[in-house]
Amino acid sequence: MPLKPDIEHPEPESKRVGYAIVGIGKLTAEELIPAARTSEHAYVAALVTSEEDKGEAFARAFDLTGEDVYTYGDFDRLAERDDVEAVYIVLPNSMHREYVERAARMGKHVLCEKPLGMNAQDAQAMVDACREAGVLLMTAYRCQYTPEHWAARDAVQSGQLGKVKLLDSIHAQVEDDPEAWRLKKDLAGGGPLPDVGIYSVNIVRFVLGQEPEWVFAALHQPQDDPRFREVEESVSAMLGFPGGVIANILTSYGAVKTTTLRVLGEKGSVLMDPAFPYQGLKLTLTDEKGELTPSFPSYDQFGLEFDHFAQCVRRGQTPWTPGEEGVADHIVMDAIYESARSGQRVKLQPPGKADAFRGTKPELPGE
Amino acid sequence: MPLKPDIEHPEPESKRVGYAIVGIGKLTAEELIPAARTSEHAYVAALVTSEEDKGEAFARAFDLTGEDVYTYGDFDRLAERDDVEAVYIVLPNSMHREYVERAARMGKHVLCEKPLGMNAQDAQAMVDACREAGVLLMTAYRCQYTPEHWAARDAVQSGQLGKVKLLDSIHAQVEDDPEAWRLKKDLAGGGPLPDVGIYSVNIVRFVLGQEPEWVFAALHQPQDDPRFREVEESVSAMLGFPGGVIANILTSYGAVKTTTLRVLGEKGSVLMDPAFPYQGLKLTLTDEKGELTPSFPSYDQFGLEFDHFAQCVRRGQTPWTPGEEGVADHIVMDAIYESARSGQRVKLQPPGKADAFRGTKPELPGE
Amino acid sequence: MPLKPDIEHPEPESKRVGYAIVGIGKLTAEELIPAARTSEHAYVAALVTSEEDKGEAFARAFDLTGEDVYTYGDFDRLAERDDVEAVYIVLPNSMHREYVERAARMGKHVLCEKPLGMNAQDAQAMVDACREAGVLLMTAYRCQYTPEHWAARDAVQSGQLGKVKLLDSIHAQVEDDPEAWRLKKDLAGGGPLPDVGIYSVNIVRFVLGQEPEWVFAALHQPQDDPRFREVEESVSAMLGFPGGVIANILTSYGAVKTTTLRVLGEKGSVLMDPAFPYQGLKLTLTDEKGELTPSFPSYDQFGLEFDHFAQCVRRGQTPWTPGEEGVADHIVMDAIYESARSGQRVKLQPPGKADAFRGTKPELPGE
Amino acid sequence: MPLKPDIEHPEPESKRVGYAIVGIGKLTAEELIPAARTSEHAYVAALVTSEEDKGEAFARAFDLTGEDVYTYGDFDRLAERDDVEAVYIVLPNSMHREYVERAARMGKHVLCEKPLGMNAQDAQAMVDACREAGVLLMTAYRCQYTPEHWAARDAVQSGQLGKVKLLDSIHAQVEDDPEAWRLKKDLAGGGPLPDVGIYSVNIVRFVLGQEPEWVFAALHQPQDDPRFREVEESVSAMLGFPGGVIANILTSYGAVKTTTLRVLGEKGSVLMDPAFPYQGLKLTLTDEKGELTPSFPSYDQFGLEFDHFAQCVRRGQTPWTPGEEGVADHIVMDAIYESARSGQRVKLQPPGKADAFRGTKPELPGE
Repeated sequence: MPLKPDIEHPEPESKRVGYAIVGIGKLTAEELIPAARTSEHAYVAALVTSEEDKGEAFARAFDLTGEDVYTYGDFDRLAERDDVEAVYIVLPNSMHREYVERAARMGKHVLCEKPLGMNAQDAQAMVDACREAGVLLMTAYRCQYTPEHWAARDAVQSGQLGKVKLLDSIHAQVEDDPEAWRLKKDLAGGGPLPDVGIYSVNIVRFVLGQEPEWVFAALHQPQDDPRFREVEESVSAMLGFPGGVIANILTSYGAVKTTTLRVLGEKGSVLMDPAFPYQGLKLTLTDEKGELTPSFPSYDQFGLEFDHFAQCVRRGQTPWTPGEEGVADHIVMDAIYESARSGQRVKLQPPGKADAFRGTKPELPGE
Repeated sequence: MPLKPDIEHPEPESKRVGYAIVGIGKLTAEELIPAARTSEHAYVAALVTSEEDKGEAFARAFDLTGEDVYTYGDFDRLAERDDVEAVYIVLPNSMHREYVERAARMGKHVLCEKPLGMNAQDAQAMVDACREAGVLLMTAYRCQYTPEHWAARDAVQSGQLGKVKLLDSIHAQVEDDPEAWRLKKDLAGGGPLPDVGIYSVNIVRFVLGQEPEWVFAALHQPQDDPRFREVEESVSAMLGFPGGVIANILTSYGAVKTTTLRVLGEKGSVLMDPAFPYQGLKLTLTDEKGELTPSFPSYDQFGLEFDHFAQCVRRGQTPWTPGEEGVADHIVMDAIYESARSGQRVKLQPPGKADAFRGTKPELPGE
Repeated sequence: MPLKPDIEHPEPESKRVGYAIVGIGKLTAEELIPAARTSEHAYVAALVTSEEDKGEAFARAFDLTGEDVYTYGDFDRLAERDDVEAVYIVLPNSMHREYVERAARMGKHVLCEKPLGMNAQDAQAMVDACREAGVLLMTAYRCQYTPEHWAARDAVQSGQLGKVKLLDSIHAQVEDDPEAWRLKKDLAGGGPLPDVGIYSVNIVRFVLGQEPEWVFAALHQPQDDPRFREVEESVSAMLGFPGGVIANILTSYGAVKTTTLRVLGEKGSVLMDPAFPYQGLKLTLTDEKGELTPSFPSYDQFGLEFDHFAQCVRRGQTPWTPGEEGVADHIVMDAIYESARSGQRVKLQPPGKADAFRGTKPELPGE
Repeated sequence: MPLKPDIEHPEPESKRVGYAIVGIGKLTAEELIPAARTSEHAYVAALVTSEEDKGEAFARAFDLTGEDVYTYGDFDRLAERDDVEAVYIVLPNSMHREYVERAARMGKHVLCEKPLGMNAQDAQAMVDACREAGVLLMTAYRCQYTPEHWAARDAVQSGQLGKVKLLDSIHAQVEDDPEAWRLKKDLAGGGPLPDVGIYSVNIVRFVLGQEPEWVFAALHQPQDDPRFREVEESVSAMLGFPGGVIANILTSYGAVKTTTLRVLGEKGSVLMDPAFPYQGLKLTLTDEKGELTPSFPSYDQFGLEFDHFAQCVRRGQTPWTPGEEGVADHIVMDAIYESARSGQRVKLQPPGKADAFRGTKPELPGE
């Protein structure tokens, strides 16, 4: 029967890493739980949600029992659950630090949604807390785990494009709801930059394997739009990398969905368009031979993250995108906001080596 | 016979505007002369070239007689040629001003290649000289005469995209020859910015119909590459337009050929890719209905310029891209260089109205 | 909470139509059950499978209890289940008739996978059995329920393409497994034609709303390939429709996955490529204005079928693709095989009117 | 000066092969003469046209003197012109034979537009006449000289696609003018089939290197359209090649411009779309690695033909597409018409070897 391999996991639950997912919104319901169902090394052992969602019906919808659904007030009772080895924090940004720290204190490994914190200092505190507690911390940068983004990085790092000169990335979308928590500064920490622009910042850092030396930025916050009372609508940022490489980044909550990455070298270029959706990524490599759109095996981006972190937990390895990788983006984003405020170029102190903050290379689908 | 309409002009030469083309390089031989052959309102009456290219064989190659080929030394003898009503300056940038001024003194109308001059001051002097001489001056911005670029502008200005928020444009190519005049600062005035980056500057100003309020820029000039001893290799510029619209621009002489324009609005977007070649422009308009790649009649970009300026000459009208339009780009490019030097945002004084420097709207093919 | 609308159905189960799914392979596990979970008007009330798959574990995988899982031997016990109003037959082709007839005898409405039967006669018997039993029969032609295929049909029928002249459709894929039931003539009834080529036959009939007047065909069955001992590897068919419209069709089990539909009219054309996958359909309409790739709301093809048939059951309406629509394809496929055998054109007797066999127009997503 | 290499030929005229072009329509004026101007091994030495076009003005338009322009009545005076080594026949199809034979009798080598004749017998007579006269005859199949079409052929013949199973090609366009000679049977020999459908027939034979074993076809000739009183509007043809490979072909004068070629193998596929225009060919090779759109050097298709035949003349070699290649297409087209008439499959006698009728492989641009 062809069915069985599709619905049964290659490992029994007892050998896989049990996660508690903390926070249940659209992402959890539509992406994370379905992803966990197909995961090789992970499963959802518990959910943590608000008081009102607690209950049998809710648990059943996720194939759990009522005992597996916790309220935020109950969060610390996860300490008793040996089968919960890791927690996945999917809460508004301002709550990341508290729950990461509480999870670390319970000895749970932590996978935390991006942005890691509210700013570099906040994020660094989370890194410190996990280090002190002896637990692993991974920032959930799904675009550092796909074969498409790795193929873009490989084209850059292998020299296929010749020396790389310029990068350009856009991540924009319309945020319509003036009540969205993403538009509240004390919940989100900023506007489109830490929510969607972070993909562009992160991916140019990833494909180059470098940190920027300076940042230049401007933002627009329309006075007359109730959505943007607290946070910016659009940000443009210019990042200067070692060797004179420059990356331009655009992000907005006021423009139609656009996700692109372009890398220009002296011999070839990479285009990803779309660059950041959950599925349907399209990569084109152009060089003197022509345009190649490689094929990749199908996969689930969230499943890849679940599995990578589960393997790191099992093997005691630093994940490819540890907390430090999340801090690194916050350093750049903090500089972007500072440059936008001052109208001046902001200098940074990049580390002297490539991939300074990254850990164990992930297994790619099909490898 | 189907042949005749294709090889005969709709107007006899005596009614068309005779041009003298000044400077004979690849552009003149491969684009301008073939374009003039199919032009409705213009023809090539004379060529001005170097001493060594003077002669019968050369004239014949262009269907002219020996009397129609002048050396640079002879240039002022064009004054005697009543049939030469306009000159088209296709010389290295540093020579534009001298020949524009000499042409103006002879009472000839002037079509001048971009960039108009070496900087805003130089270009303004050309505008002044032509005004004083009572002759028309047009900057040869071919991308302001194509139906594709006008469709992009119309999508922006008609509101089809909703409020426009962000623009992004790239124009890069590899300049291989260290001896190219384009790499000599005193001949070219700069590197890729005034040569190819100017397309991006010009087109974002064109589609918005606005001038920037501020400019932020960085450039890279590699120390170890003999091609870039005098001029920059790459420039990144950020332009702030009225209403908080931001445009990012990348240009380079060190990266593979790339020409793009992207305009993001709250309801739709425009993508031109490629955006600036002589032919094969591709425009995609995306809105909630889907993606539309409109069809356009075929045309010759240089023919459209020849014809527009010829009609302006006949009718005594200011061309759509007069000298002032060329000055406007120099103002932006001067500010880009200044910002790159200072590391600071440079403020500009945009005029209070749209299309402040533009003249008579051109006729588009098929209109 | 954004979650709830996503996991709860708009109607309580008691108002929705309960289906028993008969046959559990890859399609059922990966497509049908997930689709039913998001269905508006339907739910899975029972499963019918083989003895060995019967059991608690299996039921739990599909969120059912052990009582809801039946063996084929138990099939007739579904008669007792009032909550099972419809059965969905997902068995090898040769078993369709038996289970359709048994279901009809129990008074259950029947949704049957394509091809409806083994040939036109077999399929007609199913139609007759359902009519006599007073139950509805629908052939599961998912491509007649998507907004993309309807937009293709609308372009044809609205006159947007001008008079339609030619159609061309390909559905090929590689069948690697020599043991697949699809390669056994007495289980499948044929090779790629009734399995994948049927999409091409069906879709050209659908967009035209017409039946062919004649058929011409050839097939290839390689002697030396163990996969094709019983059935053909490839079929090419030419279908002549009223008004001189001709459709060419290619199908194969020996060529890389290809699914296309092209319709050529005197003023415009339709291209679907890919034309038949479960998701990611791409439709391009070309006319004198350009190329339009319309946007459509997201949907689940199987969900649309479940819902359409459920609504027909509730309202007592003939489905858009009743059993007769399945018979119509068999008539064409029977003629294709006959022409391939005889090397001669085979004439058919099309009905004198459009959409002769189709029922109630389905609601499209977003309508 | 960069100009000179562009306007001067690498060889003096005295070493190049002088062509007389016989027949001056749109193709000659817009394509052939410009192509000859850039040709490496050929030049236009004379033109043959109607009485009324004879004259100085006309000659000058083509950079010739009055002595170089002949009327059809003067045609045989070309015998005196030693500098005319080859003639290029660009006349209505029914006149090909007469002028090929007259040219052969003068000892001139002949390049003849496709279709070679009115039918296989007519074309064979031309082959015979040239053989007897000891002159070379080439059928002007420009699509057998481009790097794109050779790359498609190479993908097929190298095994990159695995075993090839199916081909599909369309060449359609709207013929609007009821007075066009292409719609007169005694001038054209047929309708779209010998004019545009021939590209599809020719290219599937070319990429396979094989001749069909059988042909099946249908045509449509609407009774009520004055354009199609004499010739068909549309043709659909199925060609059976050795090894069970089947090619479907569609051609029409009543459907929007469409030119495609698709080749499906067990491991990969080739798509050319557009497949037959003078420029802008797009080739996509798909296999398990992804989709590749190779880059090719720029070239002029007609220039490649002029050069190939000129080199064959100089070297005394059989051209890649000799007269026999033109006959081979006529054999297929005759069978297509016969099958359409009889409603039955028509068997052919293919030669036992690949590329049976082709001569010296052409040099491709960039080789």
